[in-house]
Amino acid sequence: MNIKVLHQVMEWNEDVSRQVRDVLSANHICMINIMGSPGAGKTSLITALIENLQKKWRVGVIEGDIAGQIDAEKIASLGIPAVQLNTDGACHIEAMSIQKILPLLPLSTLDVIFVENIGNLVCPAEFDIGESLRVTILSIPEGDDKVEKYPLMFTETGCLVLNKYDMLPYFDFDEKRVRLQYETVNPGAPLFCVSCRSGEGVDKLSGFLSQQIEKAVK
Amino acid sequence: MNIKVLHQVMEWNEDVSRQVRDVLSANHICMINIMGSPGAGKTSLITALIENLQKKWRVGVIEGDIAGQIDAEKIASLGIPAVQLNTDGACHIEAMSIQKILPLLPLSTLDVIFVENIGNLVCPAEFDIGESLRVTILSIPEGDDKVEKYPLMFTETGCLVLNKYDMLPYFDFDEKRVRLQYETVNPGAPLFCVSCRSGEGVDKLSGFLSQQIEKAVK
Repeated sequence: MNIKVLHQVMEWNEDVSRQVRDVLSANHICMINIMGSPGAGKTSLITALIENLQKKWRVGVIEGDIAGQIDAEKIASLGIPAVQLNTDGACHIEAMSIQKILPLLPLSTLDVIFVENIGNLVCPAEFDIGESLRVTILSIPEGDDKVEKYPLMFTETGCLVLNKYDMLPYFDFDEKRVRLQYETVNPGAPLFCVSCRSGEGVDKLSGFLSQQIEKAVK
Repeated sequence: MNIKVLHQVMEWNEDVSRQVRDVLSANHICMINIMGSPGAGKTSLITALIENLQKKWRVGVIEGDIAGQIDAEKIASLGIPAVQLNTDGACHIEAMSIQKILPLLPLSTLDVIFVENIGNLVCPAEFDIGESLRVTILSIPEGDDKVEKYPLMFTETGCLVLNKYDMLPYFDFDEKRVRLQYETVNPGAPLFCVSCRSGEGVDKLSGFLSQQIEKAVK
């Protein structure tokens, strides 16, 4: 019974995600779905990327949170169009919510929309929200066993960001182990070592994303 | 439709969690449900607590993971009865899984069972698994805005552990903010500052848990 209903929800989500893609395509917008654990640094990464990418692209942000609007306020304070999507308890964002919230952004004036998903290494990976690209963040303090423990998140992503990379000396984190496991579940997908605090690695990631945006907005 | 089914699952879960409680009660066992984000330090905390608590209590462990059995192997290597519960993709543990796995532990020889829930600050908080006590872990690198963003996890817990407390100097973490928000959503509930790596604070937390175990196994 449970599985059947999940299946229906998933099918319905697929229908809506296709409609979201049509809207984005009509507006020549690249939507980037940012996922990771609570505290992995999703908001900080979006903030750092905006600084780099806005030289070339017009950026908007959808901030997903279970409750509150701290993150949307942070982004809006940078002068970036931002909307807050509260899931009221739900552990992931679905395509329907994106479909409903998109008209609140000035679509005709945007090239890129970052969606900050709910902090969760599990459920968000199961839901296609109509994004052009997925970015998964794993931060060094979370440990080096996460690819093995939460495989779907790493299998389905377009790239992996190892964030808080400046903290590497303070934690027992075997980078080789993560690289090997990531290569196993997602062969050939790029990995970027980044510190949002120091700025290390943000340029390289921005370069990669800029290429992806270029392709998507054509 | 979706909400109706969720309601049924929840009701069914409540029935089973009562049955789990009956089994535990008949065996004079205190079951402690450990919850937190991926990488917050759930396994490390359980390991540290075992060292302290096993002087007085006989401990067993149920290791919940989406995939893999790294953690159960770690615990079993300490000579502690441990079983691995793989949820195969699911983002939380339900009472039914506990009911099925309990007979695999030597119940008549145990006083305490730690359940390490799936690394997730959202969904596990919604499911009563028949535990005697909930312990939520928040680690310093995750940031000081988590109580506000993921309120249920902090409202429903019996105590809060601020883990990786030795990392406080390296992160922008406002401890007062967390204490204030936690006190607001869960008035009077205790908070423990712990470093599983250095051992700081583990004694105090063990003392509190020992009292709770004492009450539960009577």
